[in-house]
Amino acid sequence: SRCSGIRRQLENKRWYVLWTHFILIWAVYSSFFTPLEFGFFRGLKENLFLLDIAGQLAFLVDIAIHFFVAYKDSHSHAMVYDRYLIALRYLKSRFTVDLLGCMPWDTIYKVCGRKEPIRYMLWIRLSRAMRVTEFFEKLEKDIRINYLFTRIVKLLVVELYCTHTAACIFYYLATTMPASKEGYTWIGSLQMGDYKYSHFRDIDLWKRYITSLYFAIVTMATVGYGEIHAVNVREMIFIMIYVSFDMILGAYLLGNMTALIVKGSRTERFRDKMTDLIRYMNKNNLGKQISNEVKGHLRLQYSHKYTEATVLQDIPNSIRTKIKQKLYEPHLKKVALFQGCSPGFIKQIAVEVHEELFLPGETIIEQETAVDQLYIVCNGTLKGVRMEDDSKEEFPMHLPAYSTVGEIPIFSNTTLPYNVQACELCRLLRIDKQALTDILEMNFSDGRTILNIILEGK
Amino acid sequence: SRCSGIRRQLENKRWYVLWTHFILIWAVYSSFFTPLEFGFFRGLKENLFLLDIAGQLAFLVDIAIHFFVAYKDSHSHAMVYDRYLIALRYLKSRFTVDLLGCMPWDTIYKVCGRKEPIRYMLWIRLSRAMRVTEFFEKLEKDIRINYLFTRIVKLLVVELYCTHTAACIFYYLATTMPASKEGYTWIGSLQMGDYKYSHFRDIDLWKRYITSLYFAIVTMATVGYGEIHAVNVREMIFIMIYVSFDMILGAYLLGNMTALIVKGSRTERFRDKMTDLIRYMNKNNLGKQISNEVKGHLRLQYSHKYTEATVLQDIPNSIRTKIKQKLYEPHLKKVALFQGCSPGFIKQIAVEVHEELFLPGETIIEQETAVDQLYIVCNGTLKGVRMEDDSKEEFPMHLPAYSTVGEIPIFSNTTLPYNVQACELCRLLRIDKQALTDILEMNFSDGRTILNIILEGK
Amino acid sequence: SRCSGIRRQLENKRWYVLWTHFILIWAVYSSFFTPLEFGFFRGLKENLFLLDIAGQLAFLVDIAIHFFVAYKDSHSHAMVYDRYLIALRYLKSRFTVDLLGCMPWDTIYKVCGRKEPIRYMLWIRLSRAMRVTEFFEKLEKDIRINYLFTRIVKLLVVELYCTHTAACIFYYLATTMPASKEGYTWIGSLQMGDYKYSHFRDIDLWKRYITSLYFAIVTMATVGYGEIHAVNVREMIFIMIYVSFDMILGAYLLGNMTALIVKGSRTERFRDKMTDLIRYMNKNNLGKQISNEVKGHLRLQYSHKYTEATVLQDIPNSIRTKIKQKLYEPHLKKVALFQGCSPGFIKQIAVEVHEELFLPGETIIEQETAVDQLYIVCNGTLKGVRMEDDSKEEFPMHLPAYSTVGEIPIFSNTTLPYNVQACELCRLLRIDKQALTDILEMNFSDGRTILNIILEGK
Amino acid sequence: SRCSGIRRQLENKRWYVLWTHFILIWAVYSSFFTPLEFGFFRGLKENLFLLDIAGQLAFLVDIAIHFFVAYKDSHSHAMVYDRYLIALRYLKSRFTVDLLGCMPWDTIYKVCGRKEPIRYMLWIRLSRAMRVTEFFEKLEKDIRINYLFTRIVKLLVVELYCTHTAACIFYYLATTMPASKEGYTWIGSLQMGDYKYSHFRDIDLWKRYITSLYFAIVTMATVGYGEIHAVNVREMIFIMIYVSFDMILGAYLLGNMTALIVKGSRTERFRDKMTDLIRYMNKNNLGKQISNEVKGHLRLQYSHKYTEATVLQDIPNSIRTKIKQKLYEPHLKKVALFQGCSPGFIKQIAVEVHEELFLPGETIIEQETAVDQLYIVCNGTLKGVRMEDDSKEEFPMHLPAYSTVGEIPIFSNTTLPYNVQACELCRLLRIDKQALTDILEMNFSDGRTILNIILEGK
Repeated sequence: SRCSGIRRQLENKRWYVLWTHFILIWAVYSSFFTPLEFGFFRGLKENLFLLDIAGQLAFLVDIAIHFFVAYKDSHSHAMVYDRYLIALRYLKSRFTVDLLGCMPWDTIYKVCGRKEPIRYMLWIRLSRAMRVTEFFEKLEKDIRINYLFTRIVKLLVVELYCTHTAACIFYYLATTMPASKEGYTWIGSLQMGDYKYSHFRDIDLWKRYITSLYFAIVTMATVGYGEIHAVNVREMIFIMIYVSFDMILGAYLLGNMTALIVKGSRTERFRDKMTDLIRYMNKNNLGKQISNEVKGHLRLQYSHKYTEATVLQDIPNSIRTKIKQKLYEPHLKKVALFQGCSPGFIKQIAVEVHEELFLPGETIIEQETAVDQLYIVCNGTLKGVRMEDDSKEEFPMHLPAYSTVGEIPIFSNTTLPYNVQACELCRLLRIDKQALTDILEMNFSDGRTILNIILEGK
Repeated sequence: SRCSGIRRQLENKRWYVLWTHFILIWAVYSSFFTPLEFGFFRGLKENLFLLDIAGQLAFLVDIAIHFFVAYKDSHSHAMVYDRYLIALRYLKSRFTVDLLGCMPWDTIYKVCGRKEPIRYMLWIRLSRAMRVTEFFEKLEKDIRINYLFTRIVKLLVVELYCTHTAACIFYYLATTMPASKEGYTWIGSLQMGDYKYSHFRDIDLWKRYITSLYFAIVTMATVGYGEIHAVNVREMIFIMIYVSFDMILGAYLLGNMTALIVKGSRTERFRDKMTDLIRYMNKNNLGKQISNEVKGHLRLQYSHKYTEATVLQDIPNSIRTKIKQKLYEPHLKKVALFQGCSPGFIKQIAVEVHEELFLPGETIIEQETAVDQLYIVCNGTLKGVRMEDDSKEEFPMHLPAYSTVGEIPIFSNTTLPYNVQACELCRLLRIDKQALTDILEMNFSDGRTILNIILEGK
Repeated sequence: SRCSGIRRQLENKRWYVLWTHFILIWAVYSSFFTPLEFGFFRGLKENLFLLDIAGQLAFLVDIAIHFFVAYKDSHSHAMVYDRYLIALRYLKSRFTVDLLGCMPWDTIYKVCGRKEPIRYMLWIRLSRAMRVTEFFEKLEKDIRINYLFTRIVKLLVVELYCTHTAACIFYYLATTMPASKEGYTWIGSLQMGDYKYSHFRDIDLWKRYITSLYFAIVTMATVGYGEIHAVNVREMIFIMIYVSFDMILGAYLLGNMTALIVKGSRTERFRDKMTDLIRYMNKNNLGKQISNEVKGHLRLQYSHKYTEATVLQDIPNSIRTKIKQKLYEPHLKKVALFQGCSPGFIKQIAVEVHEELFLPGETIIEQETAVDQLYIVCNGTLKGVRMEDDSKEEFPMHLPAYSTVGEIPIFSNTTLPYNVQACELCRLLRIDKQALTDILEMNFSDGRTILNIILEGK
Repeated sequence: SRCSGIRRQLENKRWYVLWTHFILIWAVYSSFFTPLEFGFFRGLKENLFLLDIAGQLAFLVDIAIHFFVAYKDSHSHAMVYDRYLIALRYLKSRFTVDLLGCMPWDTIYKVCGRKEPIRYMLWIRLSRAMRVTEFFEKLEKDIRINYLFTRIVKLLVVELYCTHTAACIFYYLATTMPASKEGYTWIGSLQMGDYKYSHFRDIDLWKRYITSLYFAIVTMATVGYGEIHAVNVREMIFIMIYVSFDMILGAYLLGNMTALIVKGSRTERFRDKMTDLIRYMNKNNLGKQISNEVKGHLRLQYSHKYTEATVLQDIPNSIRTKIKQKLYEPHLKKVALFQGCSPGFIKQIAVEVHEELFLPGETIIEQETAVDQLYIVCNGTLKGVRMEDDSKEEFPMHLPAYSTVGEIPIFSNTTLPYNVQACELCRLLRIDKQALTDILEMNFSDGRTILNIILEGK
């Protein structure tokens, strides 16, 4: 029964998600159409009227659905399924606004003798734009979608929507003047080339809307050609408000753009680091070889993005431990040196291990230098290079997979008589001598196992 | 007597605060009205004249009050109550400007035969705008009000006030030309649609002001339709100054916006960290489970904002100590392991303790791993999970509140044979093994008490 | 002789500085007048002609002086006084341009039969603007002058100078058309209100210049009213170049503004830290008292700006040591506890000492807590507060100046039975227990002296 | 044979690089000319036609070449030389678009009876702009070229190219109206000064193009004079798209500028640090001398940019070791104190050494202070200064090159009885006492050698 309950819940959920997307489309339509209706239509024609009625019905159904949808309590983070609480919460919050938005205001307007104030009620429907805003907020949190892109799209949509609304209000302001005084409105007094907008109420809807939108966009982008401009006091006041608002919006757009760019691209940071390093190497006349090694390493870092340390640092210790064990235990179990060691020992080693990539020709252990890292070969082959005064002797090191490098110098406190270099791109695990010693101290018997393996290998 | 003195002082203070708010309103009015009077009125009408006189009287009273208000010496940070010093300080600083501002310049202008230069004295009253600026500065320091909001409001007010002043000056410049030459002024030569501004001096004040303001805003926002523009040299010069100033102001507005946004929202930083982690986990094929744990933890961090360490780091040591003791001592006193320990010991432990939250399923102590943290359970229940090869045995740990986890492995240098995991959201206090050992060394007897408790518990 | 040589050098230097300022003024004049002459004058009138000749003479003298002024070698950082080298360097670098700039081009133009190409040579004089640029660079490095202010002034000057030059070129372009075709130039076809610019060559110079400048500024600020605009192809091309350049300049201005603001004010950072702390304290229900202490401390930090550690961190060790010894040795010599200690010991202590301020009521040493800091009182009085269960006993500590707090607990590894708190704003020097122990180990005899003093004091 | 193969490859490569540059020029030409052809030419004249054919032929050759050029496999990072794979890859990717671009659309248009839709195929050629973009990306990664400069040039080129394209489309839109209705197009209804653009199709191409470009630039920079503006609905729609796109582009330009400036100049950071330090020194009344030392050091740091530590920190340990050995081994081998030491010992010392610069008068080792650094003199001379109470005795230290300072105090745990100061700019190598001790512990015999040298030197 519990199982079927969950299944029902899931099915409901799928239906509910579909429904929210369906309503989202209606919300977009309603947000777009409401200003248009307010500005350009005093009473809708039949086809638009039917579309509008369909929309309002959909929203009525949505109101009904709201009484059955569980919500997450903000305090206890638990879902609330109690119908009474759900209803109470909805009635207290958006119910009134939602219901008023669903009223057929166009019909009421026609019935009541076409009184202007009724048409102002249309704006209540703009509360539906909130659903679109919520959708964008969800989009921003979605990591699969590029953040910069979402941000710019959102800003553009906001700007264009504001422009659309302003365009509708521009036209509305012109219609508030009687037809006889159309010379005192922005559109009535307008002449573009040889075309005059006299008797503008009779012009094609599309042309009127585009002219309004053109006016609004040209103003918002502060281009302001000036062939269209405010004419009477009402229009001036609206333009002043619109322009002031645009300044804030424009500054916000710009600020966001800058913020996104200032955070900076990885390419740029890579370039900066590279420049600094090359300058340093030139100043000190370091040879071609070292210079190439450094460049190669930086490029590798750039393309492989292996920045483990920084990524994992804010995670709690226990999870980091788990991640490291998951990553390195399977490798460590195969290491010849650790055969016969206890699982606990392997686990502890895994936590202390660091992954490192070496490019062909990079030196891993320096000849006659104190060795303080034990390396475990995961992939790739190594070679030894013995440098004596000016002669240079090179020999391959036939290391099977999961063999170790540097174990003898570490346990006997000596140095290696040759450099160990990478032949190809090698992936090595590195463990610090001190960390290894600490772990061995805690696992005495494992230490003896390892020493035996080393002595046998000698 | 001292008590009544303080009471009088407080009462005075309340009256004084009320008075400053009262004067602030007059200052707003005066800052707004002064440019308007300068531009549009050559001699005020009766009702405006009376209002103006009332304002000047209020400011006269304010001057008198300034002689009785104690001030804080900038050097010694002490309040100065000496009347002579108060008077001297005020006389030396703003007294002259304040007094000149209170003169009834309108009356003087009318009496002196309407000479223009007298009207320039009106601008002295703008010094009152300083009070509004001071008010905004106080607002900015107030942490209860959203900083971004205050900043934007302030910038908007500054922009609008500049526009208002510019509008008044625009109109004033037009009035400096004789009526016969009105075709050589911006407003006299203006035609908007079919409406002509000829004989502009006779047009409704409201219409003239709105036209001026429209001109000023359209110029400031660099829309510059161009239907209104400078006509004579004087107007050109003023517009050049105004436009140059606007560029600086606009850049400042934009810079502020950007700065506020660049500092960045928490959401964005949360997103970035999440993205990096998920990319890392996908690259390394870490399983679903770890992935979810990490995500859960990050979300918890995001919603709980428990960033203790960073918040407390700049505080002096002594205060930090106090805060920690205040927070954790009550809990530590109830811990079974510390029963019978000295208060000093508890205090020292409190300083070293760290609070950590664990989500259901997160592992607190790993099976067969060196334990270097002692955990104290504040809230929540834990369970043990023993993993052997592929089998997994789970059992609840019936830990009473304020019991400890990991004390035996720590004191005997062993490991636990099972994982300790959280069953629900747990709040644990964590103390580092090293820190604990150091404290125990200093409090030998407390160490013995604890060992006894452990041995009894075994 | 060496002495008098230096004196002569200094006198020369003073004269030289005066001369560079004198030439700077001429450079400003020349930079400003050259575009004006190019645009508005075809042959100067007598008074302007004489002024111009005077300027060219001054620059000729400056050329001569350049042959006698020592310079700093960029490689060896040493001054070069050798006349031959000085002359060679100058001849190789700016000599030709400087000399060509001094030619009386106006006279040559008049003599050669007023050929246009000669007037183009005037632009060579713009190389003098480099001196103004150098002056601004010096100003920017001067720490006495507010950086933000210098930066904004510089940007404004650059913008205004570009506008001025553009204005002159605008007018010049109009004059390249024959007078009969003035309807095909921007100024000839211009009508502002009732005023027509026909026969513009005869209009007052001031009016022509202001109109050009107005055009240039309105274009640069992208207001673009449009009552003045390009008319022929030449003008269009120039405006396209000018507008493109302005976009870059505008972006640079904005970028600089933003950069200056993003770096952020101290007020803002103070606010952020305060907000975080208050939120933290509210969440944890820390009492009023701790809350006030924390706030007080932050405000103190904000107003005293004592951020020693951060300021000194990039300085080499040797200088930092010196600074600390200079600051703290005089105090340490007066400390009762260190009487009879060797100067070397005092010096070593001085390096390890940290200054700390305590507000009235702040706790310096906590009752029954491990003491790991030795405090030396520089200013202010302290008090002891013993808290027992719920009773609280307060007593003043009569500490003479330069006495120490916490020496007995430190040397005997015990705790204090009472809190030590500050009565007023106290300045204390703090030395870490570990650092003190290390120094005492190196100075065995000083350690004995101190112990004796403590034992005597008991 | 292998050798000649490589030589052929290199020669091919040189030819190939030349060819890519040749094609790049054609790509620039094609990207520029395509919009122009679309907007202004309905059928090319003979000379332009031949040029166009030449370009298309070049691109045809380029297509053929693409079938022979090896590419780097994105997965294995290896070059692929297999002809079949090369061809397959090219056919799958850009082949179709490249081939369609090479079609002689102008001829087809003329042949097919001048049908408009065929001319839309021209836009396919814009895919060639990708080559220019690729070129800019390569330029950005090139560290020899100033990044800021590349960035600004790229942004400018993008802006100008967009403007050019928009200008061509503007003109195209005007030509889509029949000649009889030219009063309903932006250019047909245009009047500039006394010049009318009636019968605009007959006007000089250059004039028409400049007018279009002027319109586009004035709109993009949001100047919008308004003497040219959209007239019919088509033009309005295009301007709306163009303006919206410009807003995004402008914000991107601004954002980039700001980002580049916010990252900040070194001068500014130098200034900030200097200001903080001077304020600190003034507050504490540190003398002139220390103040000058600090300033001198900061200036040295600023001009020498020796920030070794920060530059090298992200490089893997093995490379850093190599760099340090390369830099310091030659110096260390010449040090008198290390004569007779093993090469391994020298190598280990080299890793631990730090380079430091000292200005004349800076103190290197302080009198009677614990010495914890061994200094090796690379360049410059030192002096000793003994300070006793108020007397000051100065004597030069005749140190040969590569001698050491501070070895006796370090090995005997004593202090020096005098300050060691720099006489001129000195370059010293510094090694920490602790690091030296650790190395000596590992190289016992080298330690004895050094001690013998010290004892002999005594």
